[in-house]
Amino acid sequence: MTGSVYLIGAGPGAVDLLTLRAERLLREADVVLYDALVTDEIIAIAKRARKLAVGKRAGRASPDQAFISRMLVRSAQRHAIVVRLKGGDPCLFARADEELSACRAANIPVEIVPGVTAGFAAAAMLLTPLTKRDEARSVAFVTPATASGARASDSWADAATHADTVVVYMGKREAARVREILIAKGRLPATPIVFVESVSRPEGTIHGGVLNDLEVIAAETGDGPVLLLLGAVFASAATEYCRILPAQERRG
Amino acid sequence: MTGSVYLIGAGPGAVDLLTLRAERLLREADVVLYDALVTDEIIAIAKRARKLAVGKRAGRASPDQAFISRMLVRSAQRHAIVVRLKGGDPCLFARADEELSACRAANIPVEIVPGVTAGFAAAAMLLTPLTKRDEARSVAFVTPATASGARASDSWADAATHADTVVVYMGKREAARVREILIAKGRLPATPIVFVESVSRPEGTIHGGVLNDLEVIAAETGDGPVLLLLGAVFASAATEYCRILPAQERRG
Repeated sequence: MTGSVYLIGAGPGAVDLLTLRAERLLREADVVLYDALVTDEIIAIAKRARKLAVGKRAGRASPDQAFISRMLVRSAQRHAIVVRLKGGDPCLFARADEELSACRAANIPVEIVPGVTAGFAAAAMLLTPLTKRDEARSVAFVTPATASGARASDSWADAATHADTVVVYMGKREAARVREILIAKGRLPATPIVFVESVSRPEGTIHGGVLNDLEVIAAETGDGPVLLLLGAVFASAATEYCRILPAQERRG
Repeated sequence: MTGSVYLIGAGPGAVDLLTLRAERLLREADVVLYDALVTDEIIAIAKRARKLAVGKRAGRASPDQAFISRMLVRSAQRHAIVVRLKGGDPCLFARADEELSACRAANIPVEIVPGVTAGFAAAAMLLTPLTKRDEARSVAFVTPATASGARASDSWADAATHADTVVVYMGKREAARVREILIAKGRLPATPIVFVESVSRPEGTIHGGVLNDLEVIAAETGDGPVLLLLGAVFASAATEYCRILPAQERRG
């Protein structure tokens, strides 16, 4: 038999931010391959399925991408409904292209089920829309993270400099570089920033401040996945959630 | 009594791309104010609610924003669960800030429930991730649409020029201007583009081509809401869904 592969967005973390379609497919799934950031509560929905953790987290050992792609193809050659569950949305910073190519090469039917990305869930937590009529009309989703071994390129920073609002995924580990590049390219040091940790989860936290203090604020966050939001729309949130002394007072 | 206002993302159109949280709140809602782009099937979930269409669509008469904000506040002063249902995600091009301010000013508790934006659902339809490892690391969501009467600004185009991948909301009406500005700012005329109409709906259609043919391709689309996607990641999709003759052959 040949089954189908479903690349499914698990959303930002909260179980009830799954889509109805994702929940139904999880219930019906025979096999589920899931990422490190998908929570136990969500995986538990797949009652019938054989479940395999194939998660990658920055700086930790994990199955390589070619292995995951092979597992997907082999699973679909033996089972009807194979789910590849990814945090957020499968089309944003999720390396879905490699898994799609593997399925196509093996003639496995594949579908993508979109999900709620962490950027929107963070904006909801902050009660702060990413756009504002006639003031913020562009939002960039960027990441400074590269595949291991790849030569670092700063192309992501061009979009982050020219968009009104910016959401940075996987940026905490390179906080110093993010601050330096964005300021060098023209973002004002006083640009409001907010870090949201464990977006949409009960343990979620919010830390605000300005771009110039990015590393200090990043260091305040814990071990959960962290999202960085940046731009004038966050002026109120950055002040409300500021827990550090501004740079001048620290030096004084 | 004072109830709560929930600004809820209805997702891209398909009923089963609602989140579990959105569906639950719709079932429990006393009042639902909904936009023009929210489908009848989704509104029908709110069985108990008084339902009010307050939708805006470009170029058509509709209640003004101040009226909608007043209705939200008045409804929450009389009912427990008031839902403001918006297409896609409430924090992206949805003018949520004006409604949030009105609720805050009247001391009405307000929550935002994030949703799946059309950009991700379109990428899922195209089986084309918006990002690609080490090649496409930034995605810009932009709109050239301005509030009626506002002086047009082209600031949105800076983000659209510097991001690897671009999703343009509400861009069809100004197709000629979008093409001119993006090419003037440095996007190559041969940049792959795709229009997706009625994203995630059974009647959805896809039209591909290159940036230089943007108006011709836009004219092929129908009356449904249209999303424009642009960038090198769409090279295959733009070719696969191209239904027009390239410009050289039209002229020849």
